[in-house]
Amino acid sequence: MFSGLCAFPLTPLSNGQLDEESFSRIMARLTAAGVDSLGILGSTGSYAYLTRQQRQRVIQLARQLAGDIPLMACVGSVSGDEILRLAEDAQQAGADALLLSVICYQSLRDEEVYRLFETVTQQVSLPVCIYDNPSTTHFRYSDQLLGQLSALPGVRSVKIPGISGDHDTVKQRISQLRSQLDPGTVIGISGDAFAASGLTAGCEVWYSVCGGLFPRISKQITRAAVAGDTQQVMALSARLEPLWALFRKHGGSLRVIAAAAGILGLTARDNLPRPLLPLPESDLPEIAEVIEPLALE
Amino acid sequence: MFSGLCAFPLTPLSNGQLDEESFSRIMARLTAAGVDSLGILGSTGSYAYLTRQQRQRVIQLARQLAGDIPLMACVGSVSGDEILRLAEDAQQAGADALLLSVICYQSLRDEEVYRLFETVTQQVSLPVCIYDNPSTTHFRYSDQLLGQLSALPGVRSVKIPGISGDHDTVKQRISQLRSQLDPGTVIGISGDAFAASGLTAGCEVWYSVCGGLFPRISKQITRAAVAGDTQQVMALSARLEPLWALFRKHGGSLRVIAAAAGILGLTARDNLPRPLLPLPESDLPEIAEVIEPLALE
Repeated sequence: MFSGLCAFPLTPLSNGQLDEESFSRIMARLTAAGVDSLGILGSTGSYAYLTRQQRQRVIQLARQLAGDIPLMACVGSVSGDEILRLAEDAQQAGADALLLSVICYQSLRDEEVYRLFETVTQQVSLPVCIYDNPSTTHFRYSDQLLGQLSALPGVRSVKIPGISGDHDTVKQRISQLRSQLDPGTVIGISGDAFAASGLTAGCEVWYSVCGGLFPRISKQITRAAVAGDTQQVMALSARLEPLWALFRKHGGSLRVIAAAAGILGLTARDNLPRPLLPLPESDLPEIAEVIEPLALE
Repeated sequence: MFSGLCAFPLTPLSNGQLDEESFSRIMARLTAAGVDSLGILGSTGSYAYLTRQQRQRVIQLARQLAGDIPLMACVGSVSGDEILRLAEDAQQAGADALLLSVICYQSLRDEEVYRLFETVTQQVSLPVCIYDNPSTTHFRYSDQLLGQLSALPGVRSVKIPGISGDHDTVKQRISQLRSQLDPGTVIGISGDAFAASGLTAGCEVWYSVCGGLFPRISKQITRAAVAGDTQQVMALSARLEPLWALFRKHGGSLRVIAAAAGILGLTARDNLPRPLLPLPESDLPEIAEVIEPLALE
Protein backbone atom coordinates (compact mmCIF):
# COMPACT_ATOMS: atom_id res chain seq x y z
CA MET A 1 0.00 0.00 0.00
CA PHE A 2 2.57 2.53 1.10
CA SER A 3 5.17 2.71 -1.67
CA GLY A 4 5.70 4.18 -5.12
CA LEU A 5 2.89 6.15 -6.73
CA CYS A 6 -0.35 6.64 -4.82
CA ALA A 7 -2.65 8.37 -7.33
CA PHE A 8 -5.32 10.77 -6.04
CA PRO A 9 -8.19 10.93 -8.56
CA LEU A 10 -10.66 13.78 -8.84
CA THR A 11 -14.22 13.02 -7.70
CA PRO A 12 -16.25 14.62 -10.50
CA LEU A 13 -19.69 15.95 -9.67
CA SER A 14 -22.60 17.05 -11.80
CA ASN A 15 -25.14 19.38 -10.16
CA GLY A 16 -23.99 18.20 -6.76
CA GLN A 17 -24.40 14.51 -7.65
CA LEU A 18 -21.55 12.06 -8.08
CA ASP A 19 -20.79 11.66 -11.80
CA GLU A 20 -20.11 7.93 -11.74
CA GLU A 21 -19.36 7.55 -15.45
CA SER A 22 -16.73 10.27 -15.39
CA PHE A 23 -15.20 8.86 -12.21
CA SER A 24 -15.02 5.45 -13.89
CA ARG A 25 -13.22 6.97 -16.89
CA ILE A 26 -10.62 8.57 -14.63
CA MET A 27 -10.19 5.34 -12.67
CA ALA A 28 -9.69 3.41 -15.93
CA ARG A 29 -6.69 5.62 -16.79
CA LEU A 30 -5.14 4.90 -13.41
CA THR A 31 -5.65 1.16 -13.39
CA ALA A 32 -4.42 0.92 -17.01
CA ALA A 33 -1.23 2.72 -16.00
CA GLY A 34 -0.75 0.33 -13.08
CA VAL A 35 -0.45 2.89 -10.32
CA ASP A 36 0.84 1.33 -7.09
CA SER A 37 -2.13 2.46 -5.04
CA LEU A 38 -5.12 4.80 -5.13
CA GLY A 39 -5.88 7.67 -2.75
CA ILE A 40 -9.64 8.03 -3.04
CA LEU A 41 -11.51 11.14 -1.82
CA GLY A 42 -8.30 12.91 -0.69
CA SER A 43 -8.22 16.71 -1.13
CA THR A 44 -8.57 16.65 -4.93
CA GLY A 45 -11.16 13.95 -4.33
CA SER A 46 -13.26 16.61 -2.58
CA TYR A 47 -14.13 14.51 0.49
CA ALA A 48 -14.79 17.65 2.53
CA TYR A 49 -17.67 18.66 0.23
CA LEU A 50 -19.44 15.29 0.06
CA THR A 51 -22.12 13.71 2.23
CA ARG A 52 -21.43 10.53 4.15
CA GLN A 53 -23.51 8.59 1.61
CA GLN A 54 -21.64 10.08 -1.35
CA ARG A 55 -18.29 9.23 0.17
CA GLN A 56 -19.31 5.65 0.80
CA ARG A 57 -20.54 5.33 -2.79
CA VAL A 58 -17.21 6.65 -4.14
CA ILE A 59 -15.31 4.02 -2.16
CA GLN A 60 -17.65 1.22 -3.24
CA LEU A 61 -17.31 2.25 -6.87
CA ALA A 62 -13.54 2.62 -6.61
CA ARG A 63 -13.35 -0.84 -5.02
CA GLN A 64 -15.21 -2.32 -7.98
CA LEU A 65 -12.97 -0.53 -10.46
CA ALA A 66 -9.59 -0.88 -8.78
CA GLY A 67 -9.10 -4.62 -9.19
CA ASP A 68 -6.11 -5.66 -7.11
CA ILE A 69 -4.76 -2.13 -6.66
CA PRO A 70 -4.76 -1.16 -2.97
CA LEU A 71 -7.21 1.55 -2.07
CA MET A 72 -6.71 4.24 0.57
CA ALA A 73 -9.82 6.29 1.41
CA CYS A 74 -9.64 9.74 2.93
CA VAL A 75 -11.88 10.12 5.97
CA GLY A 76 -12.00 13.60 7.36
CA SER A 77 -14.33 15.99 9.10
CA VAL A 78 -14.51 18.77 11.65
CA SER A 79 -16.40 16.31 13.86
CA GLY A 80 -14.67 13.45 15.63
CA ASP A 81 -17.85 11.40 15.78
CA GLU A 82 -18.35 11.82 12.04
CA ILE A 83 -14.75 10.69 11.44
CA LEU A 84 -15.53 7.49 13.35
CA ARG A 85 -18.65 6.90 11.27
CA LEU A 86 -16.76 7.59 8.04
CA ALA A 87 -13.95 5.24 9.06
CA GLU A 88 -16.45 2.42 9.66
CA ASP A 89 -18.10 3.19 6.33
CA ALA A 90 -14.76 3.09 4.50
CA GLN A 91 -13.85 -0.22 6.07
CA GLN A 92 -17.22 -1.70 5.10
CA ALA A 93 -16.95 -0.35 1.55
CA GLY A 94 -13.68 -2.18 1.01
CA ALA A 95 -10.92 0.37 1.59
CA ASP A 96 -7.49 -1.10 2.39
CA ALA A 97 -6.27 1.91 4.37
CA LEU A 98 -7.51 5.23 5.76
CA LEU A 99 -6.09 8.66 5.13
CA LEU A 100 -7.17 10.37 8.32
CA SER A 101 -7.80 14.10 8.11
CA VAL A 102 -8.73 16.22 11.10
CA ILE A 103 -10.20 19.56 10.00
CA CYS A 104 -10.03 22.47 12.43
CA TYR A 105 -12.99 24.68 13.11
CA GLN A 106 -12.10 25.63 16.64
CA SER A 107 -8.30 25.45 16.96
CA LEU A 108 -7.34 21.99 18.15
CA ARG A 109 -4.82 21.00 20.78
CA ASP A 110 -2.34 18.19 20.24
CA GLU A 111 -4.00 16.05 22.89
CA GLU A 112 -7.37 16.36 21.13
CA VAL A 113 -5.89 15.17 17.85
CA TYR A 114 -3.99 12.37 19.61
CA ARG A 115 -7.13 11.09 21.35
CA LEU A 116 -9.01 11.11 18.07
CA PHE A 117 -6.37 9.02 16.29
CA GLU A 118 -6.27 6.71 19.29
CA THR A 119 -10.05 6.17 19.15
CA VAL A 120 -10.09 5.59 15.40
CA THR A 121 -7.20 3.11 15.48
CA GLN A 122 -8.89 1.25 18.33
CA GLN A 123 -12.19 1.00 16.49
CA VAL A 124 -11.04 0.27 12.95
CA SER A 125 -8.58 -2.40 11.90
CA LEU A 126 -7.31 -0.71 8.71
CA PRO A 127 -3.84 0.85 8.56
CA VAL A 128 -3.91 4.63 8.85
CA CYS A 129 -1.99 7.40 7.10
CA ILE A 130 -1.87 10.80 8.82
CA TYR A 131 -3.06 13.62 6.57
CA ASP A 132 -0.81 16.60 7.25
CA ASN A 133 -2.04 19.47 5.09
CA PRO A 134 -2.32 22.69 7.08
CA SER A 135 -3.35 24.79 4.08
CA THR A 136 -6.71 23.02 3.91
CA THR A 137 -7.23 21.49 7.39
CA HIS A 138 -5.68 24.42 9.33
CA PHE A 139 -4.09 22.01 11.79
CA ARG A 140 -0.31 22.11 12.15
CA TYR A 141 1.28 18.86 13.30
CA SER A 142 4.47 19.19 15.30
CA ASP A 143 7.12 16.52 14.72
CA GLN A 144 6.58 15.50 18.32
CA LEU A 145 2.88 14.85 17.74
CA LEU A 146 3.59 12.99 14.49
CA GLY A 147 6.02 10.86 16.48
CA GLN A 148 3.41 10.08 19.14
CA LEU A 149 0.78 9.27 16.51
CA SER A 150 3.17 7.03 14.57
CA ALA A 151 3.59 4.90 17.70
CA LEU A 152 -0.12 4.06 17.76
CA PRO A 153 -0.79 0.56 16.49
CA GLY A 154 -2.32 0.96 13.05
CA VAL A 155 -0.63 4.22 12.08
CA ARG A 156 1.63 3.32 9.17
CA SER A 157 2.37 6.46 7.18
CA VAL A 158 2.31 10.23 7.15
CA LYS A 159 1.48 12.31 4.10
CA ILE A 160 3.53 15.48 4.45
CA PRO A 161 3.21 18.78 2.60
CA GLY A 162 5.90 19.81 0.11
CA ILE A 163 9.21 21.08 1.48
CA SER A 164 10.91 24.02 -0.23
CA GLY A 165 14.66 24.33 -0.46
CA ASP A 166 17.64 22.64 -2.04
CA HIS A 167 18.37 18.92 -1.91
CA ASP A 168 20.34 19.09 1.36
CA THR A 169 17.65 21.14 3.11
CA VAL A 170 14.93 18.71 2.07
CA LYS A 171 17.06 15.68 3.01
CA GLN A 172 17.79 17.16 6.42
CA ARG A 173 14.11 17.86 7.01
CA ILE A 174 13.11 14.29 6.10
CA SER A 175 15.85 12.85 8.36
CA GLN A 176 14.79 15.10 11.21
CA LEU A 177 11.17 13.99 10.87
CA ARG A 178 12.14 10.34 10.49
CA SER A 179 14.11 10.49 13.74
CA GLN A 180 10.88 11.37 15.55
CA LEU A 181 8.75 8.66 13.95
CA ASP A 182 8.20 5.09 15.01
CA PRO A 183 10.58 2.88 12.94
CA GLY A 184 8.90 1.67 9.78
CA THR A 185 6.57 4.64 9.42
CA VAL A 186 6.39 5.49 5.75
CA ILE A 187 6.87 9.14 4.83
CA GLY A 188 4.97 10.18 1.73
CA ILE A 189 5.43 13.46 -0.05
CA SER A 190 2.65 15.58 -1.48
CA GLY A 191 2.50 19.06 -3.00
CA ASP A 192 3.33 17.79 -6.47
CA ALA A 193 5.91 20.43 -7.39
CA PHE A 194 7.97 19.24 -4.41
CA ALA A 195 7.59 15.54 -5.09
CA ALA A 196 10.82 15.03 -7.00
CA SER A 197 12.95 16.62 -4.30
CA GLY A 198 11.05 14.73 -1.59
CA LEU A 199 11.42 11.38 -3.34
CA THR A 200 15.13 11.83 -3.96
CA ALA A 201 15.57 12.89 -0.33
CA GLY A 202 14.07 9.73 1.15
CA CYS A 203 10.27 9.82 0.91
CA GLU A 204 9.00 6.36 0.01
CA VAL A 205 5.72 7.24 -1.61
CA TRP A 206 4.28 10.07 -3.67
CA TYR A 207 0.72 10.96 -2.67
CA SER A 208 0.04 12.54 -6.00
CA VAL A 209 -2.64 14.77 -7.47
CA CYS A 210 -0.80 14.80 -10.81
CA GLY A 211 -0.76 11.00 -10.69
CA GLY A 212 -4.55 11.05 -10.46
CA LEU A 213 -4.79 12.39 -14.02
CA PHE A 214 -1.34 11.81 -15.54
CA PRO A 215 -0.36 8.45 -14.07
CA ARG A 216 2.22 7.38 -16.66
CA ILE A 217 4.70 10.22 -16.29
CA SER A 218 4.08 10.20 -12.53
CA LYS A 219 4.90 6.51 -12.35
CA GLN A 220 8.07 7.09 -14.36
CA ILE A 221 9.10 9.53 -11.64
CA THR A 222 8.51 7.16 -8.72
CA ARG A 223 10.15 4.29 -10.66
CA ALA A 224 13.25 6.40 -11.28
CA ALA A 225 13.26 7.39 -7.59
CA VAL A 226 13.16 3.75 -6.48
CA ALA A 227 16.04 3.03 -8.88
CA GLY A 228 18.01 5.89 -7.29
CA ASP A 229 18.17 7.77 -10.61
CA THR A 230 18.01 11.30 -9.22
CA GLN A 231 18.84 12.90 -12.56
CA GLN A 232 15.93 11.18 -14.27
CA VAL A 233 13.53 12.12 -11.44
CA MET A 234 14.50 15.77 -11.70
CA ALA A 235 14.35 15.76 -15.51
CA LEU A 236 10.84 14.28 -15.54
CA SER A 237 9.65 16.69 -12.88
CA ALA A 238 11.10 19.58 -14.89
CA ARG A 239 8.88 18.51 -17.80
CA LEU A 240 5.93 18.97 -15.46
CA GLU A 241 7.04 22.47 -14.41
CA PRO A 242 4.37 24.16 -16.62
CA LEU A 243 1.75 22.17 -14.69
CA TRP A 244 3.24 23.23 -11.34
CA ALA A 245 3.16 26.82 -12.64
CA LEU A 246 -0.56 26.46 -13.34
CA PHE A 247 -1.12 25.10 -9.81
CA ARG A 248 0.67 28.16 -8.39
CA LYS A 249 -1.22 30.55 -10.66
CA HIS A 250 -4.65 29.17 -9.72
CA GLY A 251 -4.05 28.86 -5.97
CA GLY A 252 -3.65 25.08 -5.83
CA SER A 253 -4.10 21.98 -7.91
CA LEU A 254 -7.83 21.26 -7.64
CA ARG A 255 -9.30 23.83 -10.02
CA VAL A 256 -6.56 23.14 -12.60
CA ILE A 257 -7.01 19.37 -12.45
CA ALA A 258 -10.79 19.79 -12.64
CA ALA A 259 -10.39 21.97 -15.75
CA ALA A 260 -7.88 19.52 -17.23
CA ALA A 261 -10.27 16.58 -16.75
CA GLY A 262 -12.91 18.55 -18.63
CA ILE A 263 -10.54 19.50 -21.45
CA LEU A 264 -9.49 15.85 -21.84
CA GLY A 265 -13.15 14.86 -22.22
CA LEU A 266 -13.10 12.70 -19.11
CA THR A 267 -15.69 14.82 -17.28
CA ALA A 268 -18.03 17.72 -17.87
CA ARG A 269 -16.40 21.15 -17.85
CA ASP A 270 -18.14 21.95 -14.60
CA ASN A 271 -17.32 19.06 -12.28
CA LEU A 272 -16.60 20.77 -8.94
CA PRO A 273 -18.68 20.77 -5.76
CA ARG A 274 -20.24 24.10 -4.81
CA PRO A 275 -19.29 26.67 -3.64
CA LEU A 276 -16.25 25.98 -5.86
CA LEU A 277 -16.68 27.26 -9.40
CA PRO A 278 -14.88 26.04 -12.50
CA LEU A 279 -12.13 28.28 -13.85
CA PRO A 280 -13.43 30.74 -16.46
CA GLU A 281 -13.36 29.75 -20.13
CA SER A 282 -10.63 32.30 -20.73
CA ASP A 283 -8.20 30.24 -18.63
CA LEU A 284 -8.76 27.04 -20.56
CA PRO A 285 -6.54 27.55 -23.64
CA GLU A 286 -3.44 27.96 -21.47
CA ILE A 287 -4.32 24.85 -19.47
CA ALA A 288 -5.03 22.86 -22.65
CA GLU A 289 -1.64 23.81 -24.04
CA VAL A 290 0.11 22.49 -20.94
CA ILE A 291 -1.83 19.30 -20.39
CA GLU A 292 -2.40 17.97 -23.89
CA PRO A 293 1.23 16.89 -24.38
CA LEU A 294 1.24 15.34 -20.88
CA ALA A 295 -1.90 13.35 -21.64
CA LEU A 296 -0.18 11.79 -24.66
CA GLU A 297 2.80 10.57 -22.60
CA MET B 1 -34.28 40.56 15.25
CA PHE B 2 -31.21 42.66 14.58
CA SER B 3 -30.77 44.93 17.59
CA GLY B 4 -29.58 44.87 21.18
CA LEU B 5 -28.35 41.61 22.66
CA CYS B 6 -28.36 38.49 20.50
CA ALA B 7 -27.35 35.71 22.89
CA PHE B 8 -25.42 32.70 21.55
CA PRO B 9 -26.06 29.68 23.77
CA LEU B 10 -23.80 26.66 24.04
CA THR B 11 -25.15 23.44 22.50
CA PRO B 12 -24.26 20.90 25.20
CA LEU B 13 -23.56 17.33 24.14
CA SER B 14 -23.26 14.10 26.06
CA ASN B 15 -21.34 11.28 24.37
CA GLY B 16 -21.94 12.90 21.02
CA GLN B 17 -25.70 13.19 21.57
CA LEU B 18 -27.56 16.43 22.08
CA ASP B 19 -28.17 16.96 25.83
CA GLU B 20 -31.66 18.41 25.52
CA GLU B 21 -32.23 18.91 29.24
CA SER B 22 -29.06 20.93 29.66
CA PHE B 23 -29.83 22.96 26.55
CA SER B 24 -33.28 23.71 27.96
CA ARG B 25 -31.73 24.91 31.23
CA ILE B 26 -29.44 27.30 29.37
CA MET B 27 -32.31 28.54 27.22
CA ALA B 28 -34.41 29.17 30.33
CA ARG B 29 -31.75 31.58 31.66
CA LEU B 30 -31.81 33.49 28.40
CA THR B 31 -35.56 33.77 28.04
CA ALA B 32 -35.89 34.73 31.72
CA ALA B 33 -33.41 37.56 31.17
CA GLY B 34 -35.37 38.75 28.14
CA VAL B 35 -32.55 38.75 25.64
CA ASP B 36 -33.49 40.58 22.45
CA SER B 37 -32.79 37.60 20.22
CA LEU B 38 -31.11 34.21 20.20
CA GLY B 39 -28.25 33.05 17.99
CA ILE B 40 -28.66 29.28 17.94
CA LEU B 41 -25.87 26.94 16.78
CA GLY B 42 -23.39 29.80 16.11
CA SER B 43 -19.72 29.05 16.87
CA THR B 44 -20.21 28.41 20.59
CA GLY B 45 -23.30 26.49 19.54
CA SER B 46 -20.95 24.04 17.79
CA TYR B 47 -22.86 23.85 14.52
CA ALA B 48 -19.76 22.73 12.66
CA TYR B 49 -19.57 19.53 14.75
CA LEU B 50 -23.21 18.49 14.47
CA THR B 51 -25.07 16.37 11.92
CA ARG B 52 -27.84 17.84 9.83
CA GLN B 53 -30.40 16.02 12.01
CA GLN B 54 -28.86 17.30 15.24
CA ARG B 55 -28.88 20.86 13.98
CA GLN B 56 -32.50 20.65 12.97
CA ARG B 57 -33.41 19.24 16.38
CA VAL B 58 -31.61 22.11 18.16
CA ILE B 59 -33.58 24.66 16.18
CA GLN B 60 -36.90 22.86 16.80
CA LEU B 61 -36.17 22.69 20.50
CA ALA B 62 -35.04 26.31 20.66
CA ARG B 63 -38.20 27.34 18.83
CA GLN B 64 -40.33 25.59 21.47
CA LEU B 65 -38.37 27.21 24.30
CA ALA B 66 -37.87 30.72 22.93
CA GLY B 67 -41.48 31.94 23.08
CA ASP B 68 -41.69 35.23 21.24
CA ILE B 69 -37.94 35.85 21.20
CA PRO B 70 -36.65 35.94 17.62
CA LEU B 71 -34.39 33.07 16.71
CA MET B 72 -31.43 33.21 14.34
CA ALA B 73 -29.96 29.82 13.37
CA CYS B 74 -26.41 29.41 12.14
CA VAL B 75 -26.18 27.41 8.95
CA GLY B 76 -22.68 26.67 7.82
CA SER B 77 -20.65 24.05 6.07
CA VAL B 78 -17.72 23.51 3.73
CA SER B 79 -20.27 22.34 1.16
CA GLY B 80 -22.54 24.76 -0.65
CA ASP B 81 -25.17 22.08 -1.27
CA GLU B 82 -25.21 21.21 2.41
CA ILE B 83 -25.66 24.91 3.28
CA LEU B 84 -28.75 24.97 1.05
CA ARG B 85 -30.17 21.87 2.76
CA LEU B 86 -29.41 23.33 6.21
CA ALA B 87 -31.06 26.62 5.28
CA GLU B 88 -34.23 24.81 4.22
CA ASP B 89 -34.15 22.79 7.43
CA ALA B 90 -33.75 25.91 9.55
CA GLN B 91 -36.65 27.61 7.82
CA GLN B 92 -38.87 24.56 8.34
CA ALA B 93 -37.83 24.25 11.98
CA GLY B 94 -39.01 27.77 12.70
CA ALA B 95 -35.93 29.98 12.60
CA ASP B 96 -36.60 33.70 12.04
CA ALA B 97 -33.23 34.41 10.43
CA LEU B 98 -30.12 32.65 9.18
CA LEU B 99 -26.54 33.28 10.22
CA LEU B 100 -24.77 32.12 7.09
CA SER B 101 -21.29 30.73 7.54
CA VAL B 102 -19.11 29.63 4.64
CA ILE B 103 -16.27 27.42 5.85
CA CYS B 104 -13.14 27.18 3.69
CA TYR B 105 -11.51 23.88 2.91
CA GLN B 106 -10.08 24.85 -0.44
CA SER B 107 -9.48 28.60 -0.41
CA LEU B 108 -12.53 30.35 -1.77
CA ARG B 109 -12.75 33.23 -4.22
CA ASP B 110 -15.05 36.17 -3.67
CA GLU B 111 -17.20 35.19 -6.63
CA GLU B 112 -17.74 31.71 -5.18
CA VAL B 113 -18.94 33.14 -1.87
CA TYR B 114 -21.12 35.70 -3.64
CA ARG B 115 -22.82 33.03 -5.79
CA LEU B 116 -23.49 30.94 -2.71
CA PHE B 117 -25.17 33.81 -0.85
CA GLU B 118 -27.12 34.63 -4.00
CA THR B 119 -28.41 31.05 -4.28
CA VAL B 120 -29.33 30.83 -0.59
CA THR B 121 -31.18 34.15 -0.59
CA GLN B 122 -33.05 33.11 -3.74
CA GLN B 123 -34.14 29.79 -2.24
CA VAL B 124 -34.96 30.79 1.33
CA SER B 125 -37.17 33.66 2.39
CA LEU B 126 -35.58 34.30 5.82
CA PRO B 127 -33.39 37.35 6.44
CA VAL B 128 -29.69 36.54 6.43
CA CYS B 129 -26.78 37.70 8.57
CA ILE B 130 -23.27 37.25 7.15
CA TYR B 131 -20.97 35.32 9.48
CA ASP B 132 -17.55 36.97 9.26
CA ASN B 133 -15.20 35.01 11.52
CA PRO B 134 -11.92 34.23 9.76
CA SER B 135 -10.38 32.55 12.80
CA THR B 136 -12.78 29.61 12.51
CA THR B 137 -14.03 29.70 8.89
CA HIS B 138 -10.70 30.77 7.34
CA PHE B 139 -12.48 33.02 4.87
CA ARG B 140 -11.62 36.72 4.88
CA TYR B 141 -14.35 39.03 3.64
CA SER B 142 -13.20 42.21 1.97
CA ASP B 143 -15.33 45.31 2.59
CA GLN B 144 -16.11 45.27 -1.11
CA LEU B 145 -17.52 41.75 -0.94
CA LEU B 146 -19.51 42.59 2.21
CA GLY B 147 -20.92 45.54 0.30
CA GLN B 148 -21.94 43.37 -2.64
CA LEU B 149 -23.50 40.76 -0.36
CA SER B 150 -25.39 43.39 1.62
CA ALA B 151 -27.09 44.50 -1.60
CA LEU B 152 -28.63 41.05 -2.09
CA PRO B 153 -32.32 41.01 -1.18
CA GLY B 154 -32.54 39.17 2.11
CA VAL B 155 -29.13 40.08 3.51
CA ARG B 156 -29.83 42.24 6.52
CA SER B 157 -26.83 42.14 8.84
CA VAL B 158 -23.15 41.32 9.16
CA LYS B 159 -21.58 39.82 12.27
CA ILE B 160 -18.07 41.21 12.35
CA PRO B 161 -15.07 40.07 14.43
CA GLY B 162 -13.76 42.28 17.23
CA ILE B 163 -11.75 45.36 16.29
CA SER B 164 -8.70 46.29 18.37
CA GLY B 165 -7.68 49.85 18.99
CA ASP B 166 -8.89 52.98 20.73
CA HIS B 167 -12.36 54.48 20.37
CA ASP B 168 -11.48 56.61 17.33
CA THR B 169 -9.87 53.71 15.50
CA VAL B 170 -12.88 51.49 16.08
CA LYS B 171 -15.31 54.25 15.12
CA GLN B 172 -13.39 54.93 11.94
CA ARG B 173 -13.37 51.24 11.03
CA ILE B 174 -17.13 50.94 11.56
CA SER B 175 -17.78 54.07 9.47
CA GLN B 176 -15.53 52.81 6.71
CA LEU B 177 -17.37 49.48 6.63
CA ARG B 178 -20.77 51.16 6.80
CA SER B 179 -19.93 53.31 3.79
CA GLN B 180 -19.55 50.10 1.74
CA LEU B 181 -22.77 48.47 2.91
CA ASP B 182 -26.26 48.76 1.53
CA PRO B 183 -28.14 51.35 3.63
CA GLY B 184 -29.97 49.73 6.52
CA THR B 185 -27.56 46.80 6.88
CA VAL B 186 -27.12 46.16 10.59
CA ILE B 187 -23.55 45.81 11.82
CA GLY B 188 -23.21 43.49 14.78
CA ILE B 189 -20.09 43.12 16.87
CA SER B 190 -18.70 39.85 18.17
CA GLY B 191 -15.49 38.88 19.93
CA ASP B 192 -16.90 39.66 23.36
CA ALA B 193 -13.90 41.58 24.72
CA PHE B 194 -14.37 44.07 21.88
CA ALA B 195 -18.12 44.41 22.22
CA ALA B 196 -18.15 47.51 24.39
CA SER B 197 -15.93 49.47 22.04
CA GLY B 198 -17.89 48.21 19.02
CA LEU B 199 -21.25 49.14 20.54
CA THR B 200 -20.14 52.61 21.53
CA ALA B 201 -18.65 53.11 18.06
CA GLY B 202 -21.89 52.42 16.21
CA CYS B 203 -22.59 48.67 16.08
CA GLU B 204 -26.30 48.07 16.59
CA VAL B 205 -26.26 44.55 17.94
CA TRP B 206 -23.97 42.41 20.06
CA TYR B 207 -23.70 38.83 18.79
CA SER B 208 -22.62 37.59 22.16
CA VAL B 209 -21.13 34.39 23.53
CA CYS B 210 -21.05 35.91 27.02
CA GLY B 211 -24.73 36.74 26.63
CA GLY B 212 -25.40 33.04 26.03
CA LEU B 213 -24.51 32.26 29.64
CA PHE B 214 -24.54 35.63 31.44
CA PRO B 215 -27.47 37.38 29.79
CA ARG B 216 -28.25 39.92 32.54
CA ILE B 217 -24.96 41.79 32.63
CA SER B 218 -24.72 41.47 28.84
CA LYS B 219 -28.15 43.04 28.46
CA GLN B 220 -27.17 45.87 30.78
CA ILE B 221 -24.31 46.58 28.38
CA THR B 222 -26.46 46.73 25.25
CA ARG B 223 -29.11 48.76 27.10
CA ALA B 224 -26.51 51.31 28.17
CA ALA B 225 -25.19 51.41 24.60
CA VAL B 226 -28.66 52.15 23.21
CA ALA B 227 -29.02 54.92 25.80
CA GLY B 228 -25.70 56.37 24.64
CA ASP B 229 -24.16 55.91 28.09
CA THR B 230 -20.62 55.13 26.97
CA GLN B 231 -19.21 55.36 30.47
CA GLN B 232 -21.62 52.72 31.77
CA VAL B 233 -20.91 50.41 28.81
CA MET B 234 -17.19 50.60 29.45
CA ALA B 235 -17.59 50.15 33.22
CA LEU B 236 -19.73 47.03 32.80
CA SER B 237 -17.36 45.56 30.23
CA ALA B 238 -14.45 46.22 32.59
CA ARG B 239 -16.21 44.06 35.17
CA LEU B 240 -16.10 41.27 32.60
CA GLU B 241 -12.37 41.72 31.96
CA PRO B 242 -11.46 38.59 34.01
CA LEU B 243 -13.74 36.59 31.70
CA TRP B 244 -12.09 38.08 28.61
CA ALA B 245 -8.72 37.16 30.15
CA LEU B 246 -9.88 33.55 30.46
CA PHE B 247 -10.99 33.56 26.80
CA ARG B 248 -7.52 34.79 25.82
CA LYS B 249 -5.76 32.27 28.05
CA HIS B 250 -7.68 29.30 26.69
CA GLY B 251 -7.52 30.23 23.01
CA GLY B 252 -11.11 31.39 22.62
CA SER B 253 -14.41 31.45 24.39
CA LEU B 254 -15.84 27.98 23.70
CA ARG B 255 -13.85 25.83 26.13
CA VAL B 256 -14.23 28.44 28.89
CA ILE B 257 -18.00 28.78 28.40
CA ALA B 258 -18.33 24.99 28.27
CA ALA B 259 -16.44 24.69 31.56
CA ALA B 260 -18.47 27.52 33.07
CA ALA B 261 -21.76 25.83 32.14
CA GLY B 262 -20.53 22.70 33.91
CA ILE B 263 -19.41 24.62 37.00
CA LEU B 264 -22.80 26.34 37.21
CA GLY B 265 -24.52 22.94 37.14
CA LEU B 266 -26.33 23.68 33.89
CA THR B 267 -24.61 20.86 32.00
CA ALA B 268 -22.28 17.93 32.59
CA ARG B 269 -18.61 18.84 32.98
CA ASP B 270 -17.87 17.22 29.65
CA ASN B 271 -20.31 18.80 27.21
CA LEU B 272 -18.18 19.42 24.11
CA PRO B 273 -18.29 17.63 20.76
CA ARG B 274 -15.26 15.51 19.92
CA PRO B 275 -12.45 16.00 19.06
CA LEU B 276 -12.73 18.93 21.50
CA LEU B 277 -11.92 17.98 25.08
CA PRO B 278 -13.06 19.75 28.22
CA LEU B 279 -10.45 21.85 29.99
CA PRO B 280 -8.55 19.90 32.64
CA GLU B 281 -9.87 19.86 36.21
CA SER B 282 -6.89 21.97 37.29
CA ASP B 283 -8.22 24.92 35.26
CA LEU B 284 -11.65 24.87 36.86
CA PRO B 285 -11.01 26.70 40.18
CA GLU B 286 -9.77 29.80 38.36
CA ILE B 287 -12.79 29.74 36.05
CA ALA B 288 -15.17 29.20 38.97
CA GLU B 289 -13.71 32.21 40.75
CA VAL B 290 -14.37 34.44 37.75
CA ILE B 291 -17.80 33.23 36.78
CA GLU B 292 -19.54 32.66 40.08
CA PRO B 293 -19.93 36.38 40.85
CA LEU B 294 -21.10 37.00 37.25
CA ALA B 295 -23.73 34.29 37.53
CA LEU B 296 -25.21 36.05 40.55
CA GLU B 297 -25.62 39.36 38.70
